[in-house]
Amino acid sequence: MTAIDSSPSATAERPSFASAREARQAIRAGLWRSHTSGLAPANVQGNVVILPVALASDFLRFCQRNPKPCPLLAVSEPGDPMLPTLGADIDIRSDVPLYRVWRDGELIDSPADIGALWQGDLVSFVLGCSFSFERALIDAGIELRHVRQGRNVAMYRTNIPTTPAGSFRGPLVVSMRPMKAADAIRAVQITARVPAVHGAPVHLGDPALIGIADIGHPDFGDPVDIEPGELPVFWACGVTPQAVVMAAKPALCITHAPGCMLITDRLNSDLPFA
Amino acid sequence: MTAIDSSPSATAERPSFASAREARQAIRAGLWRSHTSGLAPANVQGNVVILPVALASDFLRFCQRNPKPCPLLAVSEPGDPMLPTLGADIDIRSDVPLYRVWRDGELIDSPADIGALWQGDLVSFVLGCSFSFERALIDAGIELRHVRQGRNVAMYRTNIPTTPAGSFRGPLVVSMRPMKAADAIRAVQITARVPAVHGAPVHLGDPALIGIADIGHPDFGDPVDIEPGELPVFWACGVTPQAVVMAAKPALCITHAPGCMLITDRLNSDLPFA
Repeated sequence: MTAIDSSPSATAERPSFASAREARQAIRAGLWRSHTSGLAPANVQGNVVILPVALASDFLRFCQRNPKPCPLLAVSEPGDPMLPTLGADIDIRSDVPLYRVWRDGELIDSPADIGALWQGDLVSFVLGCSFSFERALIDAGIELRHVRQGRNVAMYRTNIPTTPAGSFRGPLVVSMRPMKAADAIRAVQITARVPAVHGAPVHLGDPALIGIADIGHPDFGDPVDIEPGELPVFWACGVTPQAVVMAAKPALCITHAPGCMLITDRLNSDLPFA
Repeated sequence: MTAIDSSPSATAERPSFASAREARQAIRAGLWRSHTSGLAPANVQGNVVILPVALASDFLRFCQRNPKPCPLLAVSEPGDPMLPTLGADIDIRSDVPLYRVWRDGELIDSPADIGALWQGDLVSFVLGCSFSFERALIDAGIELRHVRQGRNVAMYRTNIPTTPAGSFRGPLVVSMRPMKAADAIRAVQITARVPAVHGAPVHLGDPALIGIADIGHPDFGDPVDIEPGELPVFWACGVTPQAVVMAAKPALCITHAPGCMLITDRLNSDLPFA
């Protein structure tokens, strides 16, 4: 597990709030500082990246050029902590359970509130995350091995380049879910319908073809078992933009902590929304 | 190649009629007795199975229960040779370039017209064929190896059972097209949109998992090369109902000859139509 590791997996035993707003109220009040998988399961959750406005334009272009790893759900006005298109009361300074603060690419703090750090030049980006498509797969009766094994999803750096923008560049990071071929075919169809949360897989089958030397040793997350008769299926992963941003070593960057997502009022069933 | 072999592949060099009606007129006049791939390429072509009404109900249920190999486009009224839902002037007795006539499961003749054989108890079934989805794949820039190699598509008996109805039963037959994983993922999405012409693949990857012992020796059609880094992708095949019908040894059955399809007025772009 590394500092930029992605979220842990959804588990069936998580408590569930009556609404996304109620979940955010608990988070805002400091009552919930853990990962958000399974909370308000009908609602879209998002990865958060907050950058100074001087870098925001480059990052926005990076997302536009790499929509599979960086499916952009919302961008704030510079200096405005609210995200009205995702929910009327969302304040990005308080509504994520746990943040990470990075300076020059180094992790320096993990606060539960970033009000004290807020600056008039910060721009918030919210990117789609795999919770939404994992929910769709689970609802379709497709077993997610890492969920059954109680592990984080396995993630790998690939040899697939992203399209650079300004100082943002680097390899695509993918998540891997092993499936039987018939489920892989269904999973392609299901996830293709949700381009706002990574969309269809980028690869399936031989990991070496995308530069993964050892499927048993993921770069992030946990190894998961691939059973006989199964194929590894690879999706673009939200760790990609995190890795790309950290590699660019911005003077200041604030992200969500792994798995501690922003819960929005938007429904998975409404994806894609613009 | 066997007697129930499926159609040869589309090739770029085939002449093209101005309309489906014009192609049928040439066929009806005996001017075209060859395969129909590439003729009226915007139009849906169909596999043809003609059975006595006593068996038609079982076969209709078989198609209903096995829609991937048997995507039913039209069923005639008993004794009526016309198929008005597929085109105002379609006469199934004359509008297929070449027929095959089977008695008790044995091929006995290959006429270009079946007017002399017509009986008041015959029911015509028209089933979707892979020309339509191959067109969609080619239009999407996906290379079809068997087309490039100028071969028939490779087809295999599998260990996947169909759902029986009356005397109709037997294994699923699949066609195989090798592709790189990224193309396979796109091909799933493209073909899933056309359930009326076999729909999404039924398998990809290891052939042994569906009972194919030797991918280099297809049961029907020609072997095609699988290049390094490619996966075999398997679709339900219209040879399935042909094989199932022949195994049931009906007193009389008339089908199209391999590749010599019925050209309809319906457009591929209108699929699915009901």
